Amino acid sequence: MLERTIQFGAHAYAFLCGDGALDQFSPAIAALSADRFILIADKELPPFIKARTLHAFEEHGKVHLIETAFGEANKHLQTVQHICEQAVAWGADRRTAVVALGGGVAGNVAGMAAALLYRGLPLIHIPTTLMAASDSVLSLKQAVNLRHGKNLVGTYYTPRAVCVELTFLRTLPMREIRSGLCELVKNLLAIKPERIPEFRTLLRPLGPYTDQEMERFIDFCIDAKTEVMRHDPYERNEGLVLEYGHTVGHALELACKGRYSHGECVGFGMRCAAYIAERFGLLSEYEVRLHEDLLRQIGVKVKVSAQQMAEMEAYWLKDNKRGYRQSQPDHIGFVLLNGLGRMNKESGSSITFVPQSLVREAVHAMACSQEAVKAHGHVD
Amino acid sequence: MLERTIQFGAHAYAFLCGDGALDQFSPAIAALSADRFILIADKELPPFIKARTLHAFEEHGKVHLIETAFGEANKHLQTVQHICEQAVAWGADRRTAVVALGGGVAGNVAGMAAALLYRGLPLIHIPTTLMAASDSVLSLKQAVNLRHGKNLVGTYYTPRAVCVELTFLRTLPMREIRSGLCELVKNLLAIKPERIPEFRTLLRPLGPYTDQEMERFIDFCIDAKTEVMRHDPYERNEGLVLEYGHTVGHALELACKGRYSHGECVGFGMRCAAYIAERFGLLSEYEVRLHEDLLRQIGVKVKVSAQQMAEMEAYWLKDNKRGYRQSQPDHIGFVLLNGLGRMNKESGSSITFVPQSLVREAVHAMACSQEAVKAHGHVD
Repeated sequence: MLERTIQFGAHAYAFLCGDGALDQFSPAIAALSADRFILIADKELPPFIKARTLHAFEEHGKVHLIETAFGEANKHLQTVQHICEQAVAWGADRRTAVVALGGGVAGNVAGMAAALLYRGLPLIHIPTTLMAASDSVLSLKQAVNLRHGKNLVGTYYTPRAVCVELTFLRTLPMREIRSGLCELVKNLLAIKPERIPEFRTLLRPLGPYTDQEMERFIDFCIDAKTEVMRHDPYERNEGLVLEYGHTVGHALELACKGRYSHGECVGFGMRCAAYIAERFGLLSEYEVRLHEDLLRQIGVKVKVSAQQMAEMEAYWLKDNKRGYRQSQPDHIGFVLLNGLGRMNKESGSSITFVPQSLVREAVHAMACSQEAVKAHGHVD
Repeated sequence: MLERTIQFGAHAYAFLCGDGALDQFSPAIAALSADRFILIADKELPPFIKARTLHAFEEHGKVHLIETAFGEANKHLQTVQHICEQAVAWGADRRTAVVALGGGVAGNVAGMAAALLYRGLPLIHIPTTLMAASDSVLSLKQAVNLRHGKNLVGTYYTPRAVCVELTFLRTLPMREIRSGLCELVKNLLAIKPERIPEFRTLLRPLGPYTDQEMERFIDFCIDAKTEVMRHDPYERNEGLVLEYGHTVGHALELACKGRYSHGECVGFGMRCAAYIAERFGLLSEYEVRLHEDLLRQIGVKVKVSAQQMAEMEAYWLKDNKRGYRQSQPDHIGFVLLNGLGRMNKESGSSITFVPQSLVREAVHAMACSQEAVKAHGHVD
């Protein structure tokens, strides 16, 4: 059983992870002194996950289950409002706690509802994907999408506790596991390269992974994320490194309309960022190849069509890093590395400006090299 | 010119009020280092107010005007989302500031948009009603309504500065001024009774009031609100006294569907609360009569129909104070006074439970006594 206290600035919360973690979570639930719980669950979850979670909370008070579809297309304020309306109609008041059960989108939408209902109700995360367990619950950021871009509307909100019940993660398709591993690859390349050799010994393109291996993956992420967020809980300074791969990644995610997961898109975005960094003389050929090798080892492949490449342009122009630094015409703000574990600084800013033409070139080059990888049958 | 630094806990912001305040506001705008401004304005405002405000901000950067209807019926998350979508489509980024121009609803909706866009953009309030200038901008609370009740969804967000341009308040109808004065009566009865004699010398049921008198009204409010919020910025403890009159007031506001303003409803709610407090032996006959006298002196009258009384019940059951204290069946949580300037405590809580039957009786008694006032032609 992995037990950690996550400390981001002045914000702290308990993190419990393991086979049977939910059984040992009762004291954390009791500590909320809530007499009612709104359990916000992804309706696609296997029934045993909902039943077991309901059971764990029913010992402590009344539980009202709100089931919703949680795709990127539902990640908007209407869903938050819909949940709040249902919660209040059921009788939620200031003594009610909110429980998020599902992947990253469920966690963010439920997190927004918890932050806004009565100006803040206690929040518990029970993540059911590797991506949520190792990435989105290790952040204070909650957000939903606007038509013009991902995560443009949100707030910072600290959960009271996180419980990762590993038995819930056993039914995940390998593709979701790979998606989570992409963010882990990002964290290791950008923050903790010294742990890459250890990480590589665990990787198998086809999986599957044991509970123990999953627990280690999650622990790697806690290690990397707390290192940068300990002194930057709002991810505005050194924490911006967590956005590595996300400029092109978010654009692809929006352009491909659900064809690729968030992690797969970030993986593609990191390869583009590495290509750009090599062109700027910031990364060596070896360091760029390490990006490719790690993504290949976890079995990720992404194919970008010409039409998607064209559509991505509108999205990266609206990237939500805009404004961290005064904009430059025809340039896009990127998080780049100038070595493994080192974020590049340009004129004192964590955002490096990249000419749009070079972004296009990188996306094109990576789309084609991925084709080559696929043609040679390296992965999956 | 009234110049104050509003200090609520660790949160501080500048407050400027006077004839020509907007002309002297330029340094506060410049201090934001914003290069773009989203000006969110009530579309019902007189054109000169919008023109003059646009002009004041255009000196500092690009300004995008978003005009919307701001009634209680529009005070919901869809309006917030609509504003955010428009702002981003126009090009708002992290270096953009949000300016709220209008009454309390405009300030709250714009405040929510500022709090949520990019997880928080700088916020400036230019209130154009006495109610907004003296009450809603003197709070960190931002909120919108749900179907089941007012202000159930919101957050705490600190503006950077407030500018009350008194020339904008000159065109206000007397009824709006009276609405603002109702909240002021509440603040004086509940927090600063020692200033009531001074306040009464300024009152005339038919108005109008000079700029100087308006400035003094606003200063009374700053004085009262900072006294309780200095150590309770989130209005959860001693600050709960600001909710005086709001349990019945909010219910009436929802039941009367816009017929009465927020202040008029709070005035009615205070009379009900005083009636209840007298029945509990908490207030003397003189203290109750002072409520009536002050409201009569500012010229407020509210007529509640039998149907509205019936509808109010569903709303007070969903009052957003629920959960500050564990609920009791058939009782409603109230903020009551046990003397002028003294909030009643019951079992250590600021919420006093009142049997529903007594709430009904109070509402009925006050609805009838108001009828009597009207029949005798005392007001307006």
